[in-house]
Amino acid sequence: MQTLNVDLGDRSYPIFIGENILGQSDLLVPYINGQQVMIVTNETVAPLYLEELKKGLVEFHVDVVVLPDGEKYKNSESIDKIYASLLKNRHNRKTTLIALGGGVVGDMCGFAAASYQRGVDFIQIPTTLLSQVDSSVGGKTGINHPLGKNMIGAFHQPNVVIADTKTLTTLPERELSAGIAEVIKYGLIRDMPFLSWIERSISALLSCDQDTLSKAIYDSCRNKAEIVALDERESGCRALLNLGHTFGHAIEAHQGYGNWLHGEAVGTGMMMAAYMSEKLGWISNEDLQRVEKLISSANLPVKSPNNMTSENFVEYMSLDKKNVDHRIRLVLLKALGDAVITSDYPSDVFQETLLNSN
Amino acid sequence: MQTLNVDLGDRSYPIFIGENILGQSDLLVPYINGQQVMIVTNETVAPLYLEELKKGLVEFHVDVVVLPDGEKYKNSESIDKIYASLLKNRHNRKTTLIALGGGVVGDMCGFAAASYQRGVDFIQIPTTLLSQVDSSVGGKTGINHPLGKNMIGAFHQPNVVIADTKTLTTLPERELSAGIAEVIKYGLIRDMPFLSWIERSISALLSCDQDTLSKAIYDSCRNKAEIVALDERESGCRALLNLGHTFGHAIEAHQGYGNWLHGEAVGTGMMMAAYMSEKLGWISNEDLQRVEKLISSANLPVKSPNNMTSENFVEYMSLDKKNVDHRIRLVLLKALGDAVITSDYPSDVFQETLLNSN
Repeated sequence: MQTLNVDLGDRSYPIFIGENILGQSDLLVPYINGQQVMIVTNETVAPLYLEELKKGLVEFHVDVVVLPDGEKYKNSESIDKIYASLLKNRHNRKTTLIALGGGVVGDMCGFAAASYQRGVDFIQIPTTLLSQVDSSVGGKTGINHPLGKNMIGAFHQPNVVIADTKTLTTLPERELSAGIAEVIKYGLIRDMPFLSWIERSISALLSCDQDTLSKAIYDSCRNKAEIVALDERESGCRALLNLGHTFGHAIEAHQGYGNWLHGEAVGTGMMMAAYMSEKLGWISNEDLQRVEKLISSANLPVKSPNNMTSENFVEYMSLDKKNVDHRIRLVLLKALGDAVITSDYPSDVFQETLLNSN
Repeated sequence: MQTLNVDLGDRSYPIFIGENILGQSDLLVPYINGQQVMIVTNETVAPLYLEELKKGLVEFHVDVVVLPDGEKYKNSESIDKIYASLLKNRHNRKTTLIALGGGVVGDMCGFAAASYQRGVDFIQIPTTLLSQVDSSVGGKTGINHPLGKNMIGAFHQPNVVIADTKTLTTLPERELSAGIAEVIKYGLIRDMPFLSWIERSISALLSCDQDTLSKAIYDSCRNKAEIVALDERESGCRALLNLGHTFGHAIEAHQGYGNWLHGEAVGTGMMMAAYMSEKLGWISNEDLQRVEKLISSANLPVKSPNNMTSENFVEYMSLDKKNVDHRIRLVLLKALGDAVITSDYPSDVFQETLLNSN
């Protein structure tokens, strides 16, 4: 098992990464302060891992909320189910919520914990690669609004993150690839040695080799933890983590949440960011081809949906949280392994990127 | 005009108290960081003060959400109206929300600001006595859930609070009295000189004398700011501010939110706390009569609703956020001007208090 510390002063917490660690009570118990626990999970994950987790929690009063599975349920109705169960079961301020599932479960459970009785403790047990390398770390929580993705939420750090690589063996191939998109992201924005390692390791990752996954998760979380420690509330460099996400969110929103997986949209979004960076003369055509080859080799889409016009992109991208005073801010690549945040670019290059993306 | 500072490190902010200061741009502009402003108000307050406030905001892009008036609208639907208006009008992370209204508007607007795009700036312009002396100060925001009052929310401090005493001249008498309940509370829990002053000043307060109101607001906010600075997130002494509130919340919830005003329920709740404190031998019968006389003289109810049984009280009080591990925690009076938080009391005295309250 590997341990990584997220350094945020009095809100610091460890990430434990390893095989078969999900129900280890010695990793859980020290991070639970009261006697009540509420596990939030979904219909897909509950039959696989709920009982195993409960074995590590025998000394607590445990309630469970099982939500339907999917991004389209990341909304106010699901949050209300969590609130209602907490209130009916009389959970007090000392309760601890545990998110057992992917990014959707983690984001919702985290926001419920941030807002129930003005904030209670929570623990992340991510069971998808995407949530293990990205969404479970850093304290971003929230839900979608019909008018925009992740528009309602809070910064609320977990007490501990437990990433059990064994859970990835039951993950559908498409979701494993979606997770690899975020792994590739860390290489592209700030870590060339890691990018080269991912290129060499892509087959082992896709075949779910436990040690290779463990290293991918550790290095992804290390990069993320370093950025979050510098800029917890995303007033600066944390926005670099959104490489591919501004384009990607537009794809997700336009296609209807859940039809494209988040990681798939990010894969295409990173391709669009790389294309635009090449058109700006920042990266070479060889670099662009290298990015395309890696994203393709992870079985991720490199083209945006056929039914999306450039107007569709602009409409959704105008709502992005990173924008300031009506300029669309983008994360682009000054070089491979060196991303920047900018709203200063020629609009014709932006338009060309949108037009040529599908 | 008087100024009081709430000392919370990098979240410190001033409270301005005075007559006709609502639309003074020099009190507003320094506390707005972006170009967008969203005023959240209600149908009663908007016709009275919205235009005056807008005069101080001519240099900003201003949108307005007007909500229906009343505690029963302090729910997720109203919050969603604020989110939808922010998104439709493309408000970004640099937006500032301004709450113009009473405690309900302030709590909802504050929670919308805490959760929109994971947190944006907000300003409190309370227009009721209750919100000027209590709810606008200290950063508690939230909404009610059908299963419990103020169960969903966040701690989110405003950038500035502007308490214009002139707005109290248009306040219904019943609401003025409800505000005086919270003023009395500060005297009872920690400030005997202030309690004596309130006893002497009750007629002037009820007749809306501007200077007397200004002093009542200043001393109330001073007491509250001192407590909040010691314990922002209510892990200790901040719970003293809930004198009368645990009983009171049960009354409000049982009667249906809005039928009893919050301050009226707190008035009766403080009587119940005083009664129980007298039965415990902590305060004298003369003290109890003094409390009853003061609450009555403010035109507040001293008896709980006839239709409430002790079981009704216990049912609602069991859900209180202050409770730890199923014991009902109460704020009681060791002496006048000296409140304590305790869950250690004989249950027969508690039962007697409930039975004799109406």
